[in-house]
Amino acid sequence: MSAPFKKLALIGIGLIGSSIALAARRYGLVDAIAIATRKSETLDEARALELGDVYTLDAAEAVRGADLVILCVPVGAYESVMRAIAPALAPGAIFSDVGSVKGFVHKTLAPMVPKGVSFIPGHPLAGTEHSGPKAGFAELFVGRWCVLTPDAEARSVDVEKLTKFWRGMGSQVETMDPAHHDMVLAITSHIPHLVAYNIVGTVADLEADTQSEVIKFSASGFRDFTRIAASDPVMWRDVFLTNRDAVLEMLGRFSEDLSVLQRAVRTGDGDALEAMFTRTRAIRRSVIDAGQETAAPDFGRPHQSDSDPTPVSAVRDHGGGDDA
Amino acid sequence: MSAPFKKLALIGIGLIGSSIALAARRYGLVDAIAIATRKSETLDEARALELGDVYTLDAAEAVRGADLVILCVPVGAYESVMRAIAPALAPGAIFSDVGSVKGFVHKTLAPMVPKGVSFIPGHPLAGTEHSGPKAGFAELFVGRWCVLTPDAEARSVDVEKLTKFWRGMGSQVETMDPAHHDMVLAITSHIPHLVAYNIVGTVADLEADTQSEVIKFSASGFRDFTRIAASDPVMWRDVFLTNRDAVLEMLGRFSEDLSVLQRAVRTGDGDALEAMFTRTRAIRRSVIDAGQETAAPDFGRPHQSDSDPTPVSAVRDHGGGDDA
Repeated sequence: MSAPFKKLALIGIGLIGSSIALAARRYGLVDAIAIATRKSETLDEARALELGDVYTLDAAEAVRGADLVILCVPVGAYESVMRAIAPALAPGAIFSDVGSVKGFVHKTLAPMVPKGVSFIPGHPLAGTEHSGPKAGFAELFVGRWCVLTPDAEARSVDVEKLTKFWRGMGSQVETMDPAHHDMVLAITSHIPHLVAYNIVGTVADLEADTQSEVIKFSASGFRDFTRIAASDPVMWRDVFLTNRDAVLEMLGRFSEDLSVLQRAVRTGDGDALEAMFTRTRAIRRSVIDAGQETAAPDFGRPHQSDSDPTPVSAVRDHGGGDDA
Repeated sequence: MSAPFKKLALIGIGLIGSSIALAARRYGLVDAIAIATRKSETLDEARALELGDVYTLDAAEAVRGADLVILCVPVGAYESVMRAIAPALAPGAIFSDVGSVKGFVHKTLAPMVPKGVSFIPGHPLAGTEHSGPKAGFAELFVGRWCVLTPDAEARSVDVEKLTKFWRGMGSQVETMDPAHHDMVLAITSHIPHLVAYNIVGTVADLEADTQSEVIKFSASGFRDFTRIAASDPVMWRDVFLTNRDAVLEMLGRFSEDLSVLQRAVRTGDGDALEAMFTRTRAIRRSVIDAGQETAAPDFGRPHQSDSDPTPVSAVRDHGGGDDA
């Protein structure tokens, strides 16, 4: 029996791209994989890892004849990559990506997608703190959500086909409006990351002696913010540049709420503090009731590609590889 | 050979108190343990778990004849508990606690400590998201820091004795000035918790449909903030009421820095964002170099008392039990 897709083209082969390559191969979802990168060293790494069948520095060449094309480069590189590959996109193909923001992707790419190509951006909510082709592993998407935000012109049969592709790699799939995706991810992922970067930045400015003690006692909470804040700077720069409105909206609410808490601390309003700290427990219960709590390692935790055969539950939003 | 301490009195028997009881017994650090609580149900739980040798609702009775007394109640209850036990504190005894703040503890209790009693407040940097006598386990302190902030009048031989007690339960021990402890903990623990409570609170105010999707996709980061924000509300209320100055100082720096990041997002200053996201990596490297990164579960992760025989590395600052 032939695979659902004849040729998968992966443009960019960082953590996400290499994990797709490994998973699509393992689960028999594609016949052949073409890999394109911008840097030749990255391509050499991918070749040494035997991630694909064809390796090229010419993205258009990888795309030619592919029935599934997935952009796995930082969102900031999309426009220039698209200019190179658009003429090579074949009618009947599915064109997707793995970026952490979706409104910007639609706005930027949709006008350049050729007629007859189904444009179905995607966002696998999976990642680790590591990046590059070596960081990938086939189980990365198992038990994780993948959100698809199909263009209005995309064929529904292709949406179904791409849904099966992600399910085949172990994901749960949800279809969503791009703007709504961006608002939900702003509060579930982007603001938590911004806050983590910010706390670590605050520590970076402390006096040297205090800083060394902060590091010594980092296990009381701070350590985990440092892990989050070790994520790929280019990817996160692009997230904040391209999801600006949703991030600023949610950041505004966050800052307002923080001012209220700050005032309660300043005025010694114990009742207000206790009330705030108690009501957050209801949200916690909802997370547990929704089956979103697991016994596996968490936020910012590295996945282990070879030591843990159980469904992977370590989670951090990580939409793109770090090289094209 | 007799144990280093004849009689340990634990006032309060929540997560920390019950873990001390189990660890002190297991490692032969005390001959007898007296447990006092405010509520009789908690005392019954402690008795059913066989945590001590003597159980009483009268804290002074527990303290009488004890050569080591450790307060394990929320910091907000210290003053009233101290009024009850001060007359029962015997000359030659060591008087300590496990609260998350130390400046307040010195200011409040030191004037009430009888002559001849060595006042050596402590803070084990260990905890889980669970509370109560059932939550305790003997390995809680293994590999974790315990900070001691001895009063100027405390006998140095007693500081050494208490240091050995905590080392005997597996802790690393550091002696520190109370004000400095409070400043370091404000940024490593208190601000991270305040921010986590705040993000969860912001979500609690979202429209119902967005909120349900936030919960569904909570694994992209938000989930772990909900775990932190499920910590004991009374304990955290007391932390923010009693470490106000250090928290406001660090929160001020945090907010200033966040404004700078917010402006960079608003103006689309990619260079500033990338620079900020890159410089935080140096701090991350320091944490790893300091041996503070582990492969064990982390921030807000529940410990397992019976399934993990390896040194316990899950960490959250949790200074007090939740009952007296």
